[in-house]
Amino acid sequence: MMRRGFRAAATLGRLRALPGAPCLLPIRNPATASGSSMASRISRFCPEKTDFKDFALPNASWCPDMLGLYQEFLEKTKTDGWIKLPSFKSNREHIHGLKLPTELADTPEKSDSRIITRSIQVEGQGYEHVIFFNPSEKKSVCLFQPGPYLEGPPGFAHGGSLATMMDETFSKTAYLVGEGLLTLSISIRFKNMIPVGSLAVLNVSVDKIEDQKLYLSCITQTRDQKTVYAKSSGVFFQLQLEQE
Amino acid sequence: MMRRGFRAAATLGRLRALPGAPCLLPIRNPATASGSSMASRISRFCPEKTDFKDFALPNASWCPDMLGLYQEFLEKTKTDGWIKLPSFKSNREHIHGLKLPTELADTPEKSDSRIITRSIQVEGQGYEHVIFFNPSEKKSVCLFQPGPYLEGPPGFAHGGSLATMMDETFSKTAYLVGEGLLTLSISIRFKNMIPVGSLAVLNVSVDKIEDQKLYLSCITQTRDQKTVYAKSSGVFFQLQLEQE
Repeated sequence: MMRRGFRAAATLGRLRALPGAPCLLPIRNPATASGSSMASRISRFCPEKTDFKDFALPNASWCPDMLGLYQEFLEKTKTDGWIKLPSFKSNREHIHGLKLPTELADTPEKSDSRIITRSIQVEGQGYEHVIFFNPSEKKSVCLFQPGPYLEGPPGFAHGGSLATMMDETFSKTAYLVGEGLLTLSISIRFKNMIPVGSLAVLNVSVDKIEDQKLYLSCITQTRDQKTVYAKSSGVFFQLQLEQE
Repeated sequence: MMRRGFRAAATLGRLRALPGAPCLLPIRNPATASGSSMASRISRFCPEKTDFKDFALPNASWCPDMLGLYQEFLEKTKTDGWIKLPSFKSNREHIHGLKLPTELADTPEKSDSRIITRSIQVEGQGYEHVIFFNPSEKKSVCLFQPGPYLEGPPGFAHGGSLATMMDETFSKTAYLVGEGLLTLSISIRFKNMIPVGSLAVLNVSVDKIEDQKLYLSCITQTRDQKTVYAKSSGVFFQLQLEQE
């Protein structure tokens, strides 16, 4: 019973947390979930054809470091097994066509809902970012360039913007690696401030999967790795999707 | 030497983290910092007269819970020692007239920089919030209503939005209670999702101050306290501002 796993999660505190929508994917749809290999999740998450706009593409605001590293990873998608994840305006678009848990299926759609990381659509002002995922290594790299609408101290990104970007990269990675996830916790140790308009590189790894929990870690640093911005970790709950 | 404390902090990893600007306040200005009682910090932070717009005021988007609790706390500002903190568009406005550490003083001003929690200015779409502070109890309460531009899962606030709001409330509280602060770490345990457009109440306490560190905790819940959204903690570094 697919439902059983969901109920187990619910006992941890109703329908718990969770940032990115990926964690809320196929719970009531055995047809979708049954072939739930990492490959099938990737193909659902990265549709070859879609009418939705992908925001994870270069624009004039990207700094040279961001653009340069993007091109490097784009090359790696051709030879080294990396995948560029699309980034739509809303998680409704990412989960388009999939059924949701009852608690979510009835959620009325707002006329202009947006995922937080695509809420500011003026180029360069908000969360400029793109995520690359490596299935065999269970790793992701997020290129993040915070804009001046994400300020904390003058000229520097707010710690909350990094927390958000980290949580988003964690949740997408956790979904693709493990499927059907809920965020249990995140922790961040800040080391240095990220200047607005510069590149921060988030390196995310799935360290272990144990007792229906995925343990992820992240180190955020400059492209040359000489400055560490933050070290962080996250624990995600894996819904035990048993097939009917 | 006021500088000494700053250098001590810097050795922990250059100019470290720090979400809200309050943590970056008066380091190079002995005249401002010397009378650094909590009262003087509050009076600097809450100017009686200012040309800057205060965004922490009710608007048509506020849900009845948000408006009702705001009115309750506003009453408490008259009798119970609570203070409503203003919320300007940028931390540049909060720290107006104060000198900054060298690393920050030379930061060029962007034409339209905004603190992340006031980046979305369409009423009701982003971080609707107001913070009340109680000096004698060393506590703050933040009323937070996430809008549809802060979505994670459809219909619910992204975990990063709560992390941001929590970090912001922590840092303002830590500055007012302790002065000159840098965020060392934050941790969040998620319990339930926050529906977009509803009220989440963040109750922040300073639990202890030890070895130049302030330890804060936060419980986020519904107004009736029946649903806990998250429990979190933060550690902030206190710059030992010694007088010249």
